[in-house]
Amino acid sequence: MDKENHPGLDPQDWDEYRAQAHALLDACIDRLTEAREHPWVPVPPEIQAGYAIPSAPLPLDTLRETLVSQVMPYSTGNTHPRFFGWVHGTGLATGLLSEMVAATMNSNLGGRDHGLNYMEREVIAWARDTFGFPKTASGLLVAGTSQATVIAMAAARIRALGTEVRKKGIHGTPPLTIYSGAAAHNALRKAIELLGIGTDHLRLVPDGENGPDPKELERLILADKANGLMPMALVATAGSVDLGRFDNLNAMADLAAKHGLWLHIDGAFGAWTRLADEPWRSLSNGIERADSVACDFHKWMYVPYDCGLILIRDEAEHRAAFAARPSYLAAQDQGLGGGEPWFCDYGIDLSRGNRALKIWSALAHYGSERLGAAITANCAQAALMGKLVSTTPDMALAAPVVSNLCSFSADTTLSVPGQSELNTRIAMDLQMSGEVVFSTTVVNGTTVLRAAITNHRTTAEDIRLAIRAVERARNEKRTA
Amino acid sequence: MDKENHPGLDPQDWDEYRAQAHALLDACIDRLTEAREHPWVPVPPEIQAGYAIPSAPLPLDTLRETLVSQVMPYSTGNTHPRFFGWVHGTGLATGLLSEMVAATMNSNLGGRDHGLNYMEREVIAWARDTFGFPKTASGLLVAGTSQATVIAMAAARIRALGTEVRKKGIHGTPPLTIYSGAAAHNALRKAIELLGIGTDHLRLVPDGENGPDPKELERLILADKANGLMPMALVATAGSVDLGRFDNLNAMADLAAKHGLWLHIDGAFGAWTRLADEPWRSLSNGIERADSVACDFHKWMYVPYDCGLILIRDEAEHRAAFAARPSYLAAQDQGLGGGEPWFCDYGIDLSRGNRALKIWSALAHYGSERLGAAITANCAQAALMGKLVSTTPDMALAAPVVSNLCSFSADTTLSVPGQSELNTRIAMDLQMSGEVVFSTTVVNGTTVLRAAITNHRTTAEDIRLAIRAVERARNEKRTA
Repeated sequence: MDKENHPGLDPQDWDEYRAQAHALLDACIDRLTEAREHPWVPVPPEIQAGYAIPSAPLPLDTLRETLVSQVMPYSTGNTHPRFFGWVHGTGLATGLLSEMVAATMNSNLGGRDHGLNYMEREVIAWARDTFGFPKTASGLLVAGTSQATVIAMAAARIRALGTEVRKKGIHGTPPLTIYSGAAAHNALRKAIELLGIGTDHLRLVPDGENGPDPKELERLILADKANGLMPMALVATAGSVDLGRFDNLNAMADLAAKHGLWLHIDGAFGAWTRLADEPWRSLSNGIERADSVACDFHKWMYVPYDCGLILIRDEAEHRAAFAARPSYLAAQDQGLGGGEPWFCDYGIDLSRGNRALKIWSALAHYGSERLGAAITANCAQAALMGKLVSTTPDMALAAPVVSNLCSFSADTTLSVPGQSELNTRIAMDLQMSGEVVFSTTVVNGTTVLRAAITNHRTTAEDIRLAIRAVERARNEKRTA
Repeated sequence: MDKENHPGLDPQDWDEYRAQAHALLDACIDRLTEAREHPWVPVPPEIQAGYAIPSAPLPLDTLRETLVSQVMPYSTGNTHPRFFGWVHGTGLATGLLSEMVAATMNSNLGGRDHGLNYMEREVIAWARDTFGFPKTASGLLVAGTSQATVIAMAAARIRALGTEVRKKGIHGTPPLTIYSGAAAHNALRKAIELLGIGTDHLRLVPDGENGPDPKELERLILADKANGLMPMALVATAGSVDLGRFDNLNAMADLAAKHGLWLHIDGAFGAWTRLADEPWRSLSNGIERADSVACDFHKWMYVPYDCGLILIRDEAEHRAAFAARPSYLAAQDQGLGGGEPWFCDYGIDLSRGNRALKIWSALAHYGSERLGAAITANCAQAALMGKLVSTTPDMALAAPVVSNLCSFSADTTLSVPGQSELNTRIAMDLQMSGEVVFSTTVVNGTTVLRAAITNHRTTAEDIRLAIRAVERARNEKRTA
């Protein structure tokens, strides 16, 4: 046979493929219906070993069987109603539907004139309106807030230095400086490192319950200006990853306006309090004043991984940071090469998978009211957890519960090192038993248990079970 | 009802959900079986308007019907056997299966101890062995080569300036410089801009058929060193996006070694010639000598979007560029918080969707031999297209066919502007008619037709049809 003739990689027997696909779909749906029965479980060594690429091709039935029995059971566990370990969303049944369609379409959303690009624009327009941004805003769906932060800082740098920076770089410019509360997510540090600015130029101010003190931030801005540095951006946190605290966004916006700084808001999960009832909605008041907002749909909007958003107030500044198109990507008046603007001009990626459809399906099927009610419920559940902690003997909150995070110590009768050891042990033991997943974090020098509730399957009873499990584990340690 | 009680977002009627999901799956499989009947089509304005987020929630049956009739038909068209417009892969039937499982599991591959992280390690190990990298190499699945290039340049910068650069930034260091052939992909410019280096510090040398002249590159490196600049990286192209040319990778590796430069290879599609038969396999000889390789599984490995890879020779350098973990992400000895190393320490993203499973399924079911045969076929098809162009009166190749790209002019009897206009017109008309998708690019000042063949559904007959369609369109213009 000549090499240009090739049978392709489509199934030779479509009936067999169809049968296997339907069987797999049933297994997927079974798994969704039984989510409550399937907490995280450790991956046995023989399963790990089975992930080596097979030396001989697996027929479809074997592949299906492998996916069902050796892959599906070993997820991160965030589909379980008592997964509170990290800020991980639950996923949605509409996600399964959307991903089937996305895999079938195999679209590249970097540009060109096709349907899912139009859909992404609608998703971004919805977010723009939800956050109170003007019609001149632009946005991009990205892997998550880490990517979104990189894009925001790149746009902020353009405002500070002009588009010439894309040619000349920052060798030889005065150091750019960035200001934030100490609760700033690590993603900000990584973005600043990547952009060549260096974390020595990140000024962090200790947080109170409403974030950093604006006066203290201003003092640092003025000092840097006086020293010939170039203040570039103020970064506010809407939902700190440790404690769920919110900066006073209006105070941050005032400060940014006063000093001509780019205001970026990290709202990875907290931005979605915009959809919640009071008192939680008001936590994100002022978000509409930002130059950029970063957030995730895969956290509190429960959309399957990965799925984040960068929203930028001024499309021109967004485009100025990234647009560049060589000749083989020149726009056409008509045909597949049309469809301006292209999303590749708003970020790093030229090839882009489809994130729009899974968001669109969630918004279309559930609607923002139902999604908002789930977000409200998670905040109320964190408040309930806080109440249970406070009324359980010898347990204590590490900080007040503000939104959907609750951090606490299981036994305050112990020394600080004793508490840290106990809390760490309890987190691990309860993960291993499958009862409940907490993570740990450090608050005022003590390692404490941490629950981040971004889980639409969680019920009030799950919260009670979780705290009872901690109490029981603590009491067992006491008597051991 | 108290707000902490919430019914969640799971379907209230799982039987109805199951019925709708199976119906949708059938529609997806129908679409796959009929791929040959479904070229790209323009998105009608009323369909675009229908993508606005519905004001009232859609029930599941309406959602399913909308996905089937209003979304699925309007893809990028790269699933069609005569889509040659850009370097877009076709997708695979195993992709549909994998994405169902991925959406069900909803794992976050940023870190922790769960199955798909182990699977991603195996996929990376397979790629490492395929490219002849040592066991000490590390890697990360990313959206695509653009992201991979950013990561590679960040690691190269660490080698040039040490980990201190993460703190101090590059304000005040001598300018870092990067060297490449003029065929370097735009992704390299974007990465250099993002990192704050600036494209003024990208030195491009004109390409011959084997890439840039090493002597000319060396002259630039020496001049920069003499001027106090800091040469950082040499970037070689394995498969240029315009013409499918390959730099002489061994010559580039010799030069990088001589001057202590990081050698990065952009092998977005071309790296996969490693799986092809001769003479194409040899095009990527020397790839095993790189410090980093960037490539895409969504191009020539046909895996659904998006799915790229960065592979870095020295895990320590890779980790040094990105690793950073705050207290709430501290590693545990045991439980879900274990599972080191975490992928978030190798790149920008902390939240990471699952790209491993769709690659794993492709490798497991098809095997690298069958995938390699499809890659070989695409190269042979480009050669066939080149032969047909050369033997069609008044058509001419714009450059020799090296791998899977073929660029040509439809009517060399015209002036250069006349050819450019005709070729642009023919590309648009054939896109609109659905017969074949070519893009255009500029070679020696003439806009020419460009076919990039990374399509497992393409047959030799499709190539013949495509060239006949161009000839017919040209002849119609002549007589019009």
